[in-house]
Amino acid sequence: MNVLVVNCGSSSLKYQLIDMKGEVVLAKGLVERIGIEGSILTQKVEGREKYIIKQPMANHKEAIKLVLGALVDSTNGVIKDMSEISAVGHRVVHGGEKYSNSVLIDDEVMKALDECSKLAPLHNPPNITGINACKELMPTTPMVAVFDTAFHQTIPEYAYIYPLPYELYTEHGIRKYGFHGTSHRYVASKVAELMNDDLKNLKVITCHLGNGASIAAIKDGKSIETSMGFTPLEGIAMGTRSGSIDPAIVTFLMKELNYSIDEVNDVINKKSGVYGISGVSSDFRDIEDAAWKEDNKRAELALDVFHYKVKKFIGSYAAVMNGVDCVVFTAGLGENSPETREAICEGLDYLGIKLDKEKNKVRGKAVEISVEGSKVKVFVIPTDEELMIARDVKELVK
Amino acid sequence: MNVLVVNCGSSSLKYQLIDMKGEVVLAKGLVERIGIEGSILTQKVEGREKYIIKQPMANHKEAIKLVLGALVDSTNGVIKDMSEISAVGHRVVHGGEKYSNSVLIDDEVMKALDECSKLAPLHNPPNITGINACKELMPTTPMVAVFDTAFHQTIPEYAYIYPLPYELYTEHGIRKYGFHGTSHRYVASKVAELMNDDLKNLKVITCHLGNGASIAAIKDGKSIETSMGFTPLEGIAMGTRSGSIDPAIVTFLMKELNYSIDEVNDVINKKSGVYGISGVSSDFRDIEDAAWKEDNKRAELALDVFHYKVKKFIGSYAAVMNGVDCVVFTAGLGENSPETREAICEGLDYLGIKLDKEKNKVRGKAVEISVEGSKVKVFVIPTDEELMIARDVKELVK
Repeated sequence: MNVLVVNCGSSSLKYQLIDMKGEVVLAKGLVERIGIEGSILTQKVEGREKYIIKQPMANHKEAIKLVLGALVDSTNGVIKDMSEISAVGHRVVHGGEKYSNSVLIDDEVMKALDECSKLAPLHNPPNITGINACKELMPTTPMVAVFDTAFHQTIPEYAYIYPLPYELYTEHGIRKYGFHGTSHRYVASKVAELMNDDLKNLKVITCHLGNGASIAAIKDGKSIETSMGFTPLEGIAMGTRSGSIDPAIVTFLMKELNYSIDEVNDVINKKSGVYGISGVSSDFRDIEDAAWKEDNKRAELALDVFHYKVKKFIGSYAAVMNGVDCVVFTAGLGENSPETREAICEGLDYLGIKLDKEKNKVRGKAVEISVEGSKVKVFVIPTDEELMIARDVKELVK
Repeated sequence: MNVLVVNCGSSSLKYQLIDMKGEVVLAKGLVERIGIEGSILTQKVEGREKYIIKQPMANHKEAIKLVLGALVDSTNGVIKDMSEISAVGHRVVHGGEKYSNSVLIDDEVMKALDECSKLAPLHNPPNITGINACKELMPTTPMVAVFDTAFHQTIPEYAYIYPLPYELYTEHGIRKYGFHGTSHRYVASKVAELMNDDLKNLKVITCHLGNGASIAAIKDGKSIETSMGFTPLEGIAMGTRSGSIDPAIVTFLMKELNYSIDEVNDVINKKSGVYGISGVSSDFRDIEDAAWKEDNKRAELALDVFHYKVKKFIGSYAAVMNGVDCVVFTAGLGENSPETREAICEGLDYLGIKLDKEKNKVRGKAVEISVEGSKVKVFVIPTDEELMIARDVKELVK
């Protein structure tokens, strides 16, 4: 059974075709600049040269048509025809309160997704466009929606309610939803496997640290807390996002410094985070270079702030679960920066966290990096949202 | 040596006259509705009836004139004449980055306070008005400013810098300042006394829980982290303040729900917190009654949210200090609600916190409330900001 996993952004599209027998990735690719001059598709197949198509793509439907063409291409493709795609899994950012699990897409689901667009005006519309395009091109192939928010729907009410007028929740859906759910769920299941235990017996803190970053507390196999909130802005500092700040700063910027709403949104989403502090880049590798090779003080400060914030969340989530059995680092930075992991774990002895500096010199592999006998185990686990999506599709379609 | 302690709000004024020999409060009082119809002064002297003056007071100068009159009144006063007031201590909300300690007021200080008004437009102006009024009426009496922010000036840069464009800090002073410093400092010094130890050897978490609420982490005798930020809005949920929320909610309210800046400020400062969730009251006693006697679910939820947020900060601050030796509860709710303290401490066994439910049945007394042998000691300590201010005055004047 081959599952096509699709992740549509506003002008981009990522995909993977996964053979569920052995969970092998047959092909993966990226389409960029959809609807913009310079559209390009890049497809990778293990052991082959990259297959690149440069050709105007006015919209997501044209992009997906090209993706399907690339997959069945007689020289560069990996399947004979589209009938070899058994089902499609779509990453959808926001499922609101309606979806705590992945779901087979029908008209009712499409309506619900549309309603959720109010809550995620930047993210859900391109997801919906992608689903519609696939439905047109593969009208008989089952489609599944896998939500970034679903895993966090188990967060208890006292943790997801904001201290705001209650009507903002009941009438406008303003509450904590949390994101990166598929990633947190994947690495949590994986860490249980590595610990030879049932996830239900473990208290896990998962740190998804990439350009977007979030942390989750997982107890009894369920997400009970996460750092992102109503939107993916809340929580720790990110590449360009501020994360949590005094909300009065937002109104101060407008009232005292005359920012418009859009300017504030632009600043806190695109000009803040480690980019804002360092002034160097939103890419942690650039900031690490500036801090360590060029002795750039603001770059150092940006890293210190980031590490400190993650550390505070780990402490906080230990309190939420009354302890912690293991901490998992994943995503770009979490998987590939030993220095980040070391800085975060430093000074958490009181919890029983002891990092093994040698084992920690690892990138992109699923391994334990704490010392033998560390009360709290620390792991690096590469995330695989696409595989998680494909597994959900397989489960729902069979 | 008698010290007059003055705390001016926009239309109110609290005062205490303290004899520093034995630190005895000779008189304390409250003036309300300054500049509004129905101005009233209430003075209390231990062992006497309340002394009440109802009389129009157009401004703070008239109010202070009346306060001085009440203090020297031949029947209701406690001193013979104004020469018995050796110095005046003024509570000032915002000292910016300039003041990490209390300071004798001179022209330069007045200028600095004025500059800080940009950062605290609601709080500093009445403080300045109060100081000016006192200076006019007691031109030769030394005046001292004691800042709410001063104690937190030891917070390290990586903890006070927001993940925002760095220029917002350098050009506009947007950083974490923290408040309630005098209270955190007082109870921290007191807990060291009760533990028979030097504060410099202790890792202390102080929870100032009142209608305004903040938490601080104190290590090596210094504040290294606190929950309030650029303004007193940030941090845990309070009586009517939201505390930290996804900053994108602020712009969502304006962009999607058409709130004006002032409306948003009004909502997050005056209609949120436990009041917003419960819909009952901003007074925790009313909410506790509604939750426990009337089975009001939203009141219960408001309390649950509040306890949960405090618990998360305690966990977070243990991480900040790599452990914790003692937790202190203070201010209205912290001193007087055993249920609040119990709910917060529940499930913190992993830290070594064991509350003694019997000892915890205490209100307004400085005592330990953890079980004998609890790894982390828990205390109730009534705060006394006025005494702390008077001590600073004595120190600076002598």
